[in-house]
Amino acid sequence: MTRYKITIQYDGADFQGWQRLPGIPSVQEALENAVFKFCGEETEVYGAGRTDAGVHALGMVAHVDIDKAVDPFRLMEAVNFHLKPLPVCILSAEPAPDGFHARFSCIERAYEYHIYNRRPRPVIGERYYWHLAGPLDAEAMQQAAHHLIGHHDFTSFRSTECTAKSPMKTLDELSVRQQGDIITITARSRSFLHNQVRIMAGTLAEVGLGKRQPSDMPSILTAKNRSAAGQTAPPDGLFFTRARYEKSS
Amino acid sequence: MTRYKITIQYDGADFQGWQRLPGIPSVQEALENAVFKFCGEETEVYGAGRTDAGVHALGMVAHVDIDKAVDPFRLMEAVNFHLKPLPVCILSAEPAPDGFHARFSCIERAYEYHIYNRRPRPVIGERYYWHLAGPLDAEAMQQAAHHLIGHHDFTSFRSTECTAKSPMKTLDELSVRQQGDIITITARSRSFLHNQVRIMAGTLAEVGLGKRQPSDMPSILTAKNRSAAGQTAPPDGLFFTRARYEKSS
Repeated sequence: MTRYKITIQYDGADFQGWQRLPGIPSVQEALENAVFKFCGEETEVYGAGRTDAGVHALGMVAHVDIDKAVDPFRLMEAVNFHLKPLPVCILSAEPAPDGFHARFSCIERAYEYHIYNRRPRPVIGERYYWHLAGPLDAEAMQQAAHHLIGHHDFTSFRSTECTAKSPMKTLDELSVRQQGDIITITARSRSFLHNQVRIMAGTLAEVGLGKRQPSDMPSILTAKNRSAAGQTAPPDGLFFTRARYEKSS
Repeated sequence: MTRYKITIQYDGADFQGWQRLPGIPSVQEALENAVFKFCGEETEVYGAGRTDAGVHALGMVAHVDIDKAVDPFRLMEAVNFHLKPLPVCILSAEPAPDGFHARFSCIERAYEYHIYNRRPRPVIGERYYWHLAGPLDAEAMQQAAHHLIGHHDFTSFRSTECTAKSPMKTLDELSVRQQGDIITITARSRSFLHNQVRIMAGTLAEVGLGKRQPSDMPSILTAKNRSAAGQTAPPDGLFFTRARYEKSS
């Protein structure tokens, strides 16, 4: 048995999320079916994160155990062939280091959230953006973001359905940059609570629109109450961009 | 009667091209229908270029004559409302200068051609790229492109169905740049022959793949024969990016 580490891209708009569940299209199921067509083995593909319905991935990392000895390049090529025409592909495959687990060995996850900020709705790549027609103050959003960096209780920024035992997380990066009509929010942490990035994005957007001030952020954190933060931004603009592991893995 | 100059974006994958023709979805028809819903007038929307089926536009310029006096911002907002859910929108609208004609006053048109150059097929924004799996030499493509800049007989680079009277064109820019897996070809000229940008892109791609040399380009030009050049690149990767006019217009 060999464990393979694979890096994956997918367009989340065509799936009801990462996780395999009966009767709905999931990224995990798409991958497991393609692996089965390749080698005839029923496997479980573990991802670094279980993205929600509609969330995309530029660089999801996963692992899969295969009994048969296979060449990693052939694994990638064959699984990509069997994935067609679904919008999922493997970018790279390699034998995983000893003890590697895509979820439990991951030491940092990175997301990007993309906002299209202009009056007319986006018509090119519409499915990859949250459209906000009113002008956003990206500078104010950046100031607000800065207040959330560090080790905090993120209860205000997690879905009421979040099942994580602790709401304590260390946010390593939360930054905002503007390029023309596109505002990109980047978030990095060892791990995130359920909907944390989307609730942070929704709250920063309210700051950008002038409905909240950057200086409101500390009191939102200390409220430890979901209703203190802003709306959950839609999944369309969210991309899982990177999972990081120790050098040895 | 007022003539309005409008700048438009559209996703060409959902249309059979710019030009209104019976029984097929066109960008021109979508705009004319939306203008009718706004003001009840049957108009003709003239574009700076008539893009082919599947070709996109980031900054197409057009004009339309409307009898009723209307505020340009309201025109944009209302037409954008009536265009939903079609992937077309107006980015800006203004009264056109005297004598302005979107097609005949245009002094420069710019296109970009996007190639996704990696082994796995693109799954994010797949409809906006030509996928080439074999590694491309962007440097060789840039050298080849340089040979085509200037005033030439572009017979080898026009569709056999092209109806332009003269094959003489002045190419002001043809450049190639690489960012990660994306190779972008930029082309600027007062006007282009039918399929010229796509045939140039297809020929440059063959140089990138090593099937032709940059030094082959002069002889392709002097052959004055369509069969001397490379394939017509698919429409998916092509974007009309900009139409330029004299300051007065």
